[in-house]
Amino acid sequence: MNDSFLCKEIHEQPQVLRVVLDQERAAVQGLADAIRARDIHFVLIAARGTSDNAGRYANYLLGAVNRMPVALATPSLFSLYHQPPRLRKALVLGISQSGKSPDIVSVLAEAQRQGALTAAITNFADSDLAQHADHVIQLRAGVEQSLAATKTYTSELTAIALLSTLLADDGEMAAALSRIPDAVAGVLAVHDHVAEVAQRYRYMRYCVVIGRGYNYASAFELALKLKELTYTVAEPYSSADFQHGPMALIEPGFPVIVFAPTGLLLPEMRQFLHTLREREAEPIVVSDDAEALALARIALPLAATVPEWLSPITAIVPGQLFGLHLALARDYDPDRPRGLRKVTETR
Amino acid sequence: MNDSFLCKEIHEQPQVLRVVLDQERAAVQGLADAIRARDIHFVLIAARGTSDNAGRYANYLLGAVNRMPVALATPSLFSLYHQPPRLRKALVLGISQSGKSPDIVSVLAEAQRQGALTAAITNFADSDLAQHADHVIQLRAGVEQSLAATKTYTSELTAIALLSTLLADDGEMAAALSRIPDAVAGVLAVHDHVAEVAQRYRYMRYCVVIGRGYNYASAFELALKLKELTYTVAEPYSSADFQHGPMALIEPGFPVIVFAPTGLLLPEMRQFLHTLREREAEPIVVSDDAEALALARIALPLAATVPEWLSPITAIVPGQLFGLHLALARDYDPDRPRGLRKVTETR
Repeated sequence: MNDSFLCKEIHEQPQVLRVVLDQERAAVQGLADAIRARDIHFVLIAARGTSDNAGRYANYLLGAVNRMPVALATPSLFSLYHQPPRLRKALVLGISQSGKSPDIVSVLAEAQRQGALTAAITNFADSDLAQHADHVIQLRAGVEQSLAATKTYTSELTAIALLSTLLADDGEMAAALSRIPDAVAGVLAVHDHVAEVAQRYRYMRYCVVIGRGYNYASAFELALKLKELTYTVAEPYSSADFQHGPMALIEPGFPVIVFAPTGLLLPEMRQFLHTLREREAEPIVVSDDAEALALARIALPLAATVPEWLSPITAIVPGQLFGLHLALARDYDPDRPRGLRKVTETR
Repeated sequence: MNDSFLCKEIHEQPQVLRVVLDQERAAVQGLADAIRARDIHFVLIAARGTSDNAGRYANYLLGAVNRMPVALATPSLFSLYHQPPRLRKALVLGISQSGKSPDIVSVLAEAQRQGALTAAITNFADSDLAQHADHVIQLRAGVEQSLAATKTYTSELTAIALLSTLLADDGEMAAALSRIPDAVAGVLAVHDHVAEVAQRYRYMRYCVVIGRGYNYASAFELALKLKELTYTVAEPYSSADFQHGPMALIEPGFPVIVFAPTGLLLPEMRQFLHTLREREAEPIVVSDDAEALALARIALPLAATVPEWLSPITAIVPGQLFGLHLALARDYDPDRPRGLRKVTETR
C-alpha cells in the first residue's frame, strides 16, 4: 500500500460498487422502463476521456445483450458545427464524472430540445449535465481526489451493466452482477505482485494495449491511465484492427499488454499471444486463464473468473495498479499528473 | 520521385479522383435516392484499417451536412457474439478496398437479412462485400500494389463527399467537389520539401497526430501510415480528447503532427499550437494558413485552400509523402511493410 489518493481510491472500488448497485437500482429501473415505453432505435453516447471508455463498454454490452445499436457522439458536431444530427427515436446518454464538460452538456441540451429521451451518468446530481437529463444515475463514488479516474470508471461500468440487466430482465445476469464487488475485492489481492513487476518497465517509453469485444474498453482505459500517470505512449487496439496495419510495429522486445479473460474471445486472444511470442514481443497478460497466462512474459493474474460481459470491471483493476506502481517507480506524483486538471472544459 | 509503387500511387490520386467523380455519379445518385425514399434514422458503417478512417470522415460529414447520426460498427457483435443489433431504419454501409474481410461482409449479410438498406464502397464490384449490398460504389482506383492504402483512401473520401453532396442537392458543394482533383495535384508539389524534412525524423520512435472535426479522420489515417510504413508508435487524437489526459505526455521535443487547415476549427488548432509551443513540444503542421504554419517547428504547407468539409482529401497528401520518405530514410521497403498482407481476414 501507498499513501496516495490514487491507491486509496483503487482499493475503495468494491465498496463503491456495492453502494451504486444498492442505491441506484430504482433510478436505473426508471430509465429501463422509459426505454421500453418509447420506440428507441439507437443510443447516442456523449463522453470524453475515461467516461468515453465506459461508453465503449456500453457500445458492446447494449449491442450484444439488448440488441441496441450504439453510436459514440462526436460532440463537435453539436458544439462547433451547429448542425446537430436528428435524434428523435434516440436515447442520448451523457457520461461524465464532473458533469461539467461544456461539449458533453451541449449534446444533451440539443437532445432535450429535439424531444429525445435523455439520461446522465455522473458523480454530481446537481451538475449541468444532470440538469439536462430526464434520468440521472449517480456514481455514488464520493469525491475522487486523484486526477486519474479509477473508482468512478468502474462505477460507470457497473451502472451500465445494471441498465443492461434490468433492460434484459434477466435473473442470472442480476445474480452475477451482485457478485461483482466481491470479485473486485478478490482481484485487488494482486497489488504486491503488480508493485514488483512494474519495476521492469521503469524505462519503457511506449507500448500497445490490446483488448477485444467487451474488453476493447479495457484496452482504451489502461492506455489512458498509462499516458496520464506514467507518460508512456500507450496505444489501445482491438486485436482485429491491430492486424490491419499496426502489426508492422512488432519487433523483438516490443511490449504488448493483452486483456484475455475467460469468454468467447479467449481462443482468439490465445492465438494472438502465440503470434506475439513468434515475433519475440513482450506480452504482459491480464487473465484468469492458465493457458493465456503461460504465454505471458509477465502475468497479471485475475483471482476471480466472472462472466465475460462483466469482465471489464475486474480486468481493469490490475491495470490501474500497474499504472500506479509504474508512476511510483518513475518518481511521479500519481495524484497530480503534469499538465492536467480534474475538470477539462473542451468545446 | 522514387520508383516504389507507393510513390506512384500517391501521385496517381488526382486522376483516380477525376475518374471516380465522373464514373460513379450515377451509382451514388441511386444510393442518395434510396436513402431519401426510405425512413432512415441512422447510418451504421462497417470498415477496418484505412477504410475505417474513411468511415470517420463519413461520421462527421453525414452528421454535419446531412444531419444523419452515424455509428461505426463493432463487427465482433455480428461475427462473434451472434447478437446483432436491430438495424431496421438503418443504412448499413460497408467500406473495404478488397471487399473481402469476413467480419465486414458479415455485417452487411446480417443487415440484408434484416431488410435494411445496404451499400458497399469497394475497389472490386464482384467482391463478397459488393454481393451483399443493394448499392455498390466503385473506387475506380485500379490495382493498388503498395500494401499501404493511399489512392483508395482518397477515393473513398471522395465517394463519401459525393454522397453527401447529392443528398444535400447543393450546387455549391458540387462545384467545390469538382475542383478537388486539381487541388490534390497542386498539393503534391510539396513532394521534394517533404523528402527533405523527413530526414529530421529518422530516429523518432513515437509521436502523436492531432486532428479535429472532419480532420479527425486525417489524424487516424496518418498515424496508421506511420505505423505501417515506418514502425513509429504514432497515436491519433482529437485536440479535445487529447486534453482529457494524454496532454500529460508532452515534454520538450515531443513530436506532435497537427492538421490545421482553414475552417471553423482553425482558431482552436492555432490555440492548441500555442500550448504546444509553451510546453516546448515539436509541432509539425499541415496547413494552408500562414499563422498556423508559423507556429510549426516544421511546416508541411498545403498549396490549395479548399472548403473545410473537403480538406481531409488534400490534407492527407503531405502525410502520405511524409510516411513514404520516412520509410525511405529508414531503408524500409515502402511497398511491403513487415508482417502485413494486403487482404486481412479478421473475424
